[in-house]
Amino acid sequence: MFLKNCWYVAALDHELIDGKLLARTLLGENVLLYRGESGRVVAMNDRCPHRGALLSQGRLEGDGVRCMYHGIKYDGSGKCVQIPGQDMIPPKLKVHTYPAVERSHFIWVWLGEAAKADPALIIDLPYLSDPQWKGIPAYLHYDANYLLIVDNLSDFSHLAFVHTKTLGGSEEYAFVTKPTVVERLERGFRVERWHLDSAPPPFHKKVIRDKTGKVDRRNIATMVIPGIFTMETLFAAAGQGAQQGNVAGAMEYRNCQFMTPESESSTHFFWSYLNNFEGQDSTISRSLLDSLIEGFMEDKQIIERQQKTLEQDPGFQMLAILADAPLAHFRRVLGKLIDAEQTCAPAEPRAAAAAAATAAAG
Amino acid sequence: MFLKNCWYVAALDHELIDGKLLARTLLGENVLLYRGESGRVVAMNDRCPHRGALLSQGRLEGDGVRCMYHGIKYDGSGKCVQIPGQDMIPPKLKVHTYPAVERSHFIWVWLGEAAKADPALIIDLPYLSDPQWKGIPAYLHYDANYLLIVDNLSDFSHLAFVHTKTLGGSEEYAFVTKPTVVERLERGFRVERWHLDSAPPPFHKKVIRDKTGKVDRRNIATMVIPGIFTMETLFAAAGQGAQQGNVAGAMEYRNCQFMTPESESSTHFFWSYLNNFEGQDSTISRSLLDSLIEGFMEDKQIIERQQKTLEQDPGFQMLAILADAPLAHFRRVLGKLIDAEQTCAPAEPRAAAAAAATAAAG
Amino acid sequence: MFLKNCWYVAALDHELIDGKLLARTLLGENVLLYRGESGRVVAMNDRCPHRGALLSQGRLEGDGVRCMYHGIKYDGSGKCVQIPGQDMIPPKLKVHTYPAVERSHFIWVWLGEAAKADPALIIDLPYLSDPQWKGIPAYLHYDANYLLIVDNLSDFSHLAFVHTKTLGGSEEYAFVTKPTVVERLERGFRVERWHLDSAPPPFHKKVIRDKTGKVDRRNIATMVIPGIFTMETLFAAAGQGAQQGNVAGAMEYRNCQFMTPESESSTHFFWSYLNNFEGQDSTISRSLLDSLIEGFMEDKQIIERQQKTLEQDPGFQMLAILADAPLAHFRRVLGKLIDAEQTCAPAEPRAAAAAAATAAAG
Repeated sequence: MFLKNCWYVAALDHELIDGKLLARTLLGENVLLYRGESGRVVAMNDRCPHRGALLSQGRLEGDGVRCMYHGIKYDGSGKCVQIPGQDMIPPKLKVHTYPAVERSHFIWVWLGEAAKADPALIIDLPYLSDPQWKGIPAYLHYDANYLLIVDNLSDFSHLAFVHTKTLGGSEEYAFVTKPTVVERLERGFRVERWHLDSAPPPFHKKVIRDKTGKVDRRNIATMVIPGIFTMETLFAAAGQGAQQGNVAGAMEYRNCQFMTPESESSTHFFWSYLNNFEGQDSTISRSLLDSLIEGFMEDKQIIERQQKTLEQDPGFQMLAILADAPLAHFRRVLGKLIDAEQTCAPAEPRAAAAAAATAAAG
Repeated sequence: MFLKNCWYVAALDHELIDGKLLARTLLGENVLLYRGESGRVVAMNDRCPHRGALLSQGRLEGDGVRCMYHGIKYDGSGKCVQIPGQDMIPPKLKVHTYPAVERSHFIWVWLGEAAKADPALIIDLPYLSDPQWKGIPAYLHYDANYLLIVDNLSDFSHLAFVHTKTLGGSEEYAFVTKPTVVERLERGFRVERWHLDSAPPPFHKKVIRDKTGKVDRRNIATMVIPGIFTMETLFAAAGQGAQQGNVAGAMEYRNCQFMTPESESSTHFFWSYLNNFEGQDSTISRSLLDSLIEGFMEDKQIIERQQKTLEQDPGFQMLAILADAPLAHFRRVLGKLIDAEQTCAPAEPRAAAAAAATAAAG
Repeated sequence: MFLKNCWYVAALDHELIDGKLLARTLLGENVLLYRGESGRVVAMNDRCPHRGALLSQGRLEGDGVRCMYHGIKYDGSGKCVQIPGQDMIPPKLKVHTYPAVERSHFIWVWLGEAAKADPALIIDLPYLSDPQWKGIPAYLHYDANYLLIVDNLSDFSHLAFVHTKTLGGSEEYAFVTKPTVVERLERGFRVERWHLDSAPPPFHKKVIRDKTGKVDRRNIATMVIPGIFTMETLFAAAGQGAQQGNVAGAMEYRNCQFMTPESESSTHFFWSYLNNFEGQDSTISRSLLDSLIEGFMEDKQIIERQQKTLEQDPGFQMLAILADAPLAHFRRVLGKLIDAEQTCAPAEPRAAAAAAATAAAG
């Protein structure tokens, strides 16, 4: 069961270069994505209504696509415009299309009711298009339900154990730090956590000059519906008083992660990890890309096995600890939205999105 | 759901040389096929009734087979003739056998009621045993329901798009030609189509000397129950009036294809593609074999994906175009025969087969 | 459906060296096996009750294990002893453990009611710890229900056909020998069979000096609940009167095999094949290990295919021959025990085990 009336990241813009017909399953639906010759991005059901052949095995023509089984051609709105050897086109012969929007290297698609697909509802992440912030957008496929990845990102203590030698740095992180702030948002949550006077974690140490100095680290993470995670990370020299506001010389990261369900048991995972200190050379971005993939692979190993375990015993009830408060809140909020959508209550996604920016008491 | 009271191609004769015990699933039943030492072909359920071991893992002895688990031996009629260490043979200990007939390099098996298995019902394709016609019988496995392959062969317009560079030749074929004749038969259909004054398609061009001259091409295809496709193809020099009857110097092909269900989602696909102009050298047959495999692989890529798409959404309703009339007729006729068989109405396959030779109005 | 209130072999002791966290599914339950730092063997449900991560992906600490997702630590009794960043431990946060006993290189686990897990119920096989008997304990995985392996071991005639060139020696074994004794036991059966004046079978011939002399071979096999097979094999020079009691110079083997269900369709198969004539060199044991694996692979090929055949047609009724009497008895006895366990009748496994040593009339 997925929330359908919202925007999901469906692809990265570079995946559609050179007329690529990209087949991607989103929320259980087979979707064909491509950039038409006019430059417009099209998202269309990936099935020819004639005999069920894949349109992604077809051929791009203008902003449309021709099924290469019997040659039937559809325009970018999914309307059939040609049947070889037949003049009359049956009105029913059309392909469902989905609203699609391109924004800062990401392609967003709306799989619910098209009438509600307001582009203004797409989350605004200004650093994705700010030249001061450098990063390389990337993709991973997970054989796990997307909420298990949401869970993973909701509790920083996993950094200490899963990512000790990559993104975390030490197990101390789990024992000596606690969230400074946990805010419940109308459509998600916000968590802030400081780790003072520690060695820089491996991914960061690799890209800085001072390998020995201690640092103060601040993570501010936000998770919003349907599965959009952003984290603002700051490293300042230990002792200079960053927590009190002196962030002179701080090095910062902006992590943007997008979980899009492929099916109930698999997920498209897109991200861009940006930094503000790189300059013109991309060495640091490439190192960070490697570090992130290294860390995500550690998550993947645990989460994909977790998925199998849950599938084996659907009756298993997880047991919450205190650190699970944010993820429990997120699942509750999401559950309510899905219920509302399923019962056809008049949803007002636009107003809700605006309200989400206002944090409710934690 | 399959039609059981009819003959299906089960194997090619060369698959049974040297005492091979061939395990092949036909219509969902595990069948053991072999040639006994007397030369007789046997088709037998591939399961020892004792403990369920595969008889195809056994040993050929005379016209019978010995299960190599506990050594129980069955003769060519499936009767148990020896139990090591035991004198009395329980009458129930026997294996079901199926009527099997060898005809022009193909092994035909009847999986329905044995009493109705009249060899005279096997379709007569004289060129399969005529030395004037040369060809190499071959086999492919499809991960798709056999009716999707029947569909494929029912509409020539796919030649233009799927096989542009192999069996088709140009997309023009779909746009400028239409079936000249579409006949509905009692057990199938017959389609005739001319393509005049065109470049020879690649598979044909490879095996002829005149690579530049234009040709007139005539295809006459017949599909009959349960899934037997034959196509008579003629190429004559463009302009000599082939369509009006002057076929002097024409080069002809006979295509025989046999679709036998392995399961609801997979098919044994046998064929022989014969030509009448090769002489004693088999270079042309070998080139045509390669060309056909090349073309069938193009079909396979589309059809196997189509199978997956249909499995994902069993509620999907295909939308017919005009060119689907023959396949719709075929499915209707087949459906009626299966219904009749299921409801135990007294089927008279022999009479029906004879009637099928008489074409009904299209 | 498995019998749960009994001991099953879960692992070999060498599988747990060096702190290995061994994940093994037993009777459908995911079990973590390890040797704690005190030397004690622990069997624990392999799932962290917090979020379902695998404990076998965790870290051994003392006699306990730490989940390496969020760092929660459990002691060897499954009790949670630490949650990083949280002082209060919820009483429900604990992992189920299973009684585990180490005995002569084998690790035994009890998956039923812990209160009934009396170590005295573990079958006593003295040669497993007797230095006079040499052998190399080993493991194979089967994609088949364990009862199909029990069946296999219940009828020696399969030696003649499946293992002609490895463990059997000749097909004559099936035709000229019959069980001398078949005893029905309360929890299994005992079969004795002599084969006189024959060539030594290949596995034995490889490890003896006299390759030409004929031998008298005696096999005494015992199968007991839940799936424990032992076979005492004796080879004496043909004609010296071994069957009459003169076993001077006989060479003997002790075969111990343990079938533990992994799932309804797969099995852990442990064994040790011991001999009493090797001396200090282990060349003979290693040759016998190879021979046994060679033979078991022959069984595996048949049995795993048999499993598939049975899965394809759950309605298939096997047809018994006389040689199936022992296995039919075993399945009957096991069925009654499982029924009794399922209906919660007060089982008295200890008394039953003692009774099993007393053979009932065959």
